[in-house]
Amino acid sequence: MIYSKSDVRNTFGGICVKRRMTFFILGYVMLLEAVFMLPAMLLCIFDGDMKAAGAFAIVMAILLAISIPLVLKKPDTKSFHSKEGFIIAAVSWIVLGVFGGLPFYISGEIPSVVDCLFESISGFTTTGASILSNVEILPRGILLWRSFTHWIGGMGVLTFLLAVVTLAGGNSIYIMRAESPGPSPGKLVPKIRQTAKILYSIYIVMTVLEVIFLLAGGMPFFDSVVHAFGTAGTGGFSIKNASIAAYGSAYVDGVITAFMLLFGLNFNLYYFLLIKRFREFAKSEEGRTYFAIVICAIIAITINIFGTVYSTIPEAIRYSSFQVASIMTTTGFATANFDMWPQLSRMVLVFLMFIGACAGSTGGGIKVSRILILYKMARREIRRLIAPRSVEIVKIDGKQISSDITSATSMFFVIYMAILAASVLVISIWGYDLETTITAVIACLNNIGPGLSMVGPTGNYAFFDTVSKLVLAFNMLAGRLEIFPILILISPYGWQRRSKIKKLEKNIASAELNR
Amino acid sequence: MIYSKSDVRNTFGGICVKRRMTFFILGYVMLLEAVFMLPAMLLCIFDGDMKAAGAFAIVMAILLAISIPLVLKKPDTKSFHSKEGFIIAAVSWIVLGVFGGLPFYISGEIPSVVDCLFESISGFTTTGASILSNVEILPRGILLWRSFTHWIGGMGVLTFLLAVVTLAGGNSIYIMRAESPGPSPGKLVPKIRQTAKILYSIYIVMTVLEVIFLLAGGMPFFDSVVHAFGTAGTGGFSIKNASIAAYGSAYVDGVITAFMLLFGLNFNLYYFLLIKRFREFAKSEEGRTYFAIVICAIIAITINIFGTVYSTIPEAIRYSSFQVASIMTTTGFATANFDMWPQLSRMVLVFLMFIGACAGSTGGGIKVSRILILYKMARREIRRLIAPRSVEIVKIDGKQISSDITSATSMFFVIYMAILAASVLVISIWGYDLETTITAVIACLNNIGPGLSMVGPTGNYAFFDTVSKLVLAFNMLAGRLEIFPILILISPYGWQRRSKIKKLEKNIASAELNR
Repeated sequence: MIYSKSDVRNTFGGICVKRRMTFFILGYVMLLEAVFMLPAMLLCIFDGDMKAAGAFAIVMAILLAISIPLVLKKPDTKSFHSKEGFIIAAVSWIVLGVFGGLPFYISGEIPSVVDCLFESISGFTTTGASILSNVEILPRGILLWRSFTHWIGGMGVLTFLLAVVTLAGGNSIYIMRAESPGPSPGKLVPKIRQTAKILYSIYIVMTVLEVIFLLAGGMPFFDSVVHAFGTAGTGGFSIKNASIAAYGSAYVDGVITAFMLLFGLNFNLYYFLLIKRFREFAKSEEGRTYFAIVICAIIAITINIFGTVYSTIPEAIRYSSFQVASIMTTTGFATANFDMWPQLSRMVLVFLMFIGACAGSTGGGIKVSRILILYKMARREIRRLIAPRSVEIVKIDGKQISSDITSATSMFFVIYMAILAASVLVISIWGYDLETTITAVIACLNNIGPGLSMVGPTGNYAFFDTVSKLVLAFNMLAGRLEIFPILILISPYGWQRRSKIKKLEKNIASAELNR
Repeated sequence: MIYSKSDVRNTFGGICVKRRMTFFILGYVMLLEAVFMLPAMLLCIFDGDMKAAGAFAIVMAILLAISIPLVLKKPDTKSFHSKEGFIIAAVSWIVLGVFGGLPFYISGEIPSVVDCLFESISGFTTTGASILSNVEILPRGILLWRSFTHWIGGMGVLTFLLAVVTLAGGNSIYIMRAESPGPSPGKLVPKIRQTAKILYSIYIVMTVLEVIFLLAGGMPFFDSVVHAFGTAGTGGFSIKNASIAAYGSAYVDGVITAFMLLFGLNFNLYYFLLIKRFREFAKSEEGRTYFAIVICAIIAITINIFGTVYSTIPEAIRYSSFQVASIMTTTGFATANFDMWPQLSRMVLVFLMFIGACAGSTGGGIKVSRILILYKMARREIRRLIAPRSVEIVKIDGKQISSDITSATSMFFVIYMAILAASVLVISIWGYDLETTITAVIACLNNIGPGLSMVGPTGNYAFFDTVSKLVLAFNMLAGRLEIFPILILISPYGWQRRSKIKKLEKNIASAELNR
C-alpha cells in the first residue's frame, strides 16, 4: 500500500483512512439521500400534508448544505484500499440511517429520537422491524419514504453511487465489496461502473414487473409500489397493520411469494440469463441449494400445519410457502401469524432466518453460499481425519474457493455467533422472555423483521428499552454490511495511525520469522 | 499408512478399520466395565438387595462372556492410526453406555429400555441429565453405579485402559486423543502409558481429597463418595432429589464449588505443579481465561440476583458462585432453582454452558481453549483486512497453534452448531416449548444436565418421547467425544473399504493437480 503525505498528516483523531476520499464519498451519499427524499416530499405536497412535506424539505436542506461543500472538494488522490472501503461503507450507512430518520422526527409522526433511528436503520438495512403499532394512520409520504429506504438499502446506496458517478477507478471495487452481500462479491464485467449499472437495471426492471403484477391483481397503485419496494429490497415494511394478510388475496400472496424468491436469488444469475449463459444459470450450486431448502421447508411446514391450523392442503401450501419465502429471503412480510403455528414450523422458520438468501441478492442472513462453503469445509475436515494425506480443495460451481475466503467465511460465522450471544446477553438485562430476546436479535441480525413471541408477526419492537433498541439497530447494520465493515469501524485497529499499522505489520512479520 | 493383508480381507460390512485391534480393545473395555460393576454389586449384597445384586451379576457375566474371548485373541498387528482411534473411541463408548444401562433394566428400577440407555449414557458422558423424578427410592448399589459411571467417564475409560494395559505402542496416542477433550491433547511425558497413569493418579488423589473434605463437613460417607464421583467427573447425578441443596450447608456448597472449579481445570496444569513448573502453571492462558470468565459471571449474576432473589450479598455470592461453577464446569449440581432467576442470570448460565471447562479437564462444552483459539483467529481475520500484508500466527501460551488445529477448531464450532440446530429441529416435531427444546439440547450436547424451563434444575428428562431421548443421548456422546469420533463412525467415509479411501486420496490429489 502506498500512502500519500496527506494521509500521514491527517489530524482527525488519528484516523489513517484516506480522510478526504471518505468525506468526498460521504458527501455524495448525503447528496443522493436528499435526492431520494424528493418523491416522498412531492407526495406529501400532492396530499396536502404540508407538515410532513416541510419535514422532508428541512432534512433535504440540511443534507444539501453538508454534502455540496464535501462533494466540491475533490480529493487529491482517488486510490484507496480494502480497509478504506470498509470504513466508507460503515460510515455511509450510519449517516444514511441518522438522516433517514429525521423526517419521522421533524414531522412529529414518531416522537422518540431513538425510535426514528431504529425505524430508519431498519428500513435501510431491509430489516423491516418496526416500532410502530399502527402504520395505517401515517401520511402517505412518510410511508413512501419508509418503504423507499428498503429499496435503496436492498441493492445498496454505494452500488447506486458507483453506477451514476465515476469515482475512484479500479479500486472502487473495495467499496462495492464492503457493501455487497456474500463471501466473494465480484465483478460481472471488467468495469465496476458497468457492473453496478447492470445490477441496478435488473433491479429496476424486476421492481417494475412486480408493480405491474400487483396492479393486475387489483391492488391500488400506491400499495403496489410500496409493497414492490418492500419485496425488492427484501425489507418487509407494509402500509397495513396486518401486512400482506390485509389483502386476503391468493393472487397477491402468490405474486409476492414468487417475487420474494426471485429477489433472494443471486443477481449474477439474472445476468447469466441476459447474456444467454443458460447452463451457468441452471447449474448454480447456490441457486439449487436455495430452492432445495425452500422446497424442503415448505413441505415440512405444510405437513405440520395441515390439519392443525389449516383444513385444506392448498391453504396450507399457500400460507407455508409465503412464510417460508418471506423468512428465507429475509423479507418479513406476513400473511399468517406463524407465531401461533406448531413448534416445528416455528423452529424451521427460525433456522431459515439464519440461512438467509443467496449472496449477491438483496436478502440478509448468513447466505446460502456461506452455508455451502461451511458444509464443504466441514466435509473436508472429516475426510482429512480419515485420509490424512489428502489435500482437498473447496469448490463452488467447479471453481476453487481460495483459502482467504474459506478462512473469512468460518470467521464470519464465529463472529456472527459471538455478536448474537453478546447482544442477547445485553438485552437480557431488561428481563424480556428468552424467546422474545433471542428471536429479536436473530430477526435483526439477519435483517428479517418479525421474530417470535412479543416480536412475532402481530407484535412490534416498540416495547424495548432504549439500549436494547440501539443494540438491535447495531445488529441490523452488522447484518446488512456483513459484520466486517462495522467491526473494523469500531475496532482499535481501524482507527490507528498508519505508523502503528506499519508497526503491526512489522511485529507480525518478525513474529513469523521468530517462530 | 501401511495396511496388512488382514485388513484388505476384512469382511465385517466393508469396514476398513483394523478389525481385530478394534475387537481386542473393545474386549478390554467390556472387561473393565465388568470390573467397574463389582463395587456396586458388593454394596447391593451388603445392603441385602439381592435383586439388584443379581442384576449386576447377570450383566457382569454377559460382559465377561463376550470380553474374555475377544481379549484372548491378540491382534497380529498392534499399529493403527488416527481414524481407527476415532472409531474405537466411538464404538467403546456406545458399548459402555448400552451395557451400563442393563443393571437399571434387569433390576427393574427403570422399566423402559430407552430410559436405561439415556440414564447410562448420561452417566458415562458426565452429562447428569436424568429421567428419574425420584432418585431417593433407588437402592444404594444402583445409585453408586449411576454415579461411578460419571467418575469413569470423566477421565475416560480408554485412558484408564492405557494406564493399566500396554496396548499398541506409540500409536495408542490416537486412542487417547479421540477420547480426551480439547483441541490438541498431548502427552505429558514421552510414554502414553505413563501419561495416562499420571492423569489417573491426580484424578484419584483429588477425588479422595474431596471425599475427606465432605466427610469433615458432616456429610455421610456414602453421600460423600457419590458426590465426589459426580464432582470429579463433572457429572452432576445426585442421590437427593434436591441435589446439593438437600444438605443446606454453606460448607458443603463451598467445598463442592471449589472442587468443581478444580476438576474443570486442565489436568496438565496439576502436572506442572507436581514437577514444580510453577511459572507455567501461573501463566496458562486457558487457566487465566477460565477463572476470568468464572469471576465475571459470578459478579454479573450476584448483582442480578441480589435484592430480587436473595436479600444478603453473602447469600447471593454463595448461590451464584455454586451455580456458575456447576454450569461452567458442566457438572450440573444445583443448590438453587436458577430457572426462576432473572433473565440475565439465566442467559449468562446458558452461555457458560457453551463455553464449558478447560481442555484436558473432565468437563464438557466447547472448552475455554477453543474459545481462545477462535477469538484469536477472529482477531487475526480483522487485522488481515486492515493490514493485508500481515501474516499472523495464532499462539496459545506462546506456542504456535498449527493450521491443522485452527482449521479443526473452526470446523468443530461449525459442526457443533449444525448438530445443535438439527437436534433442535428433530425434537421440535413433538412440540415442546422453545426454551425447553433448545436448552435440553444445549445441556446434553455440552454435557451439563439441567437446562431451563421443563428441564430446569427441578425438572427432569422423563417426559421426552423416545426419539427425542435418543437424539439427546446422541448429543451427549457427540459432546463427550467432541463430535469427530461419532461423526466418523456414522459418516460413509468411515465405513469405506480401504480401496475406496485410497481412491478418495487419489481423486483429491488429482483435483489438486488440475486446479
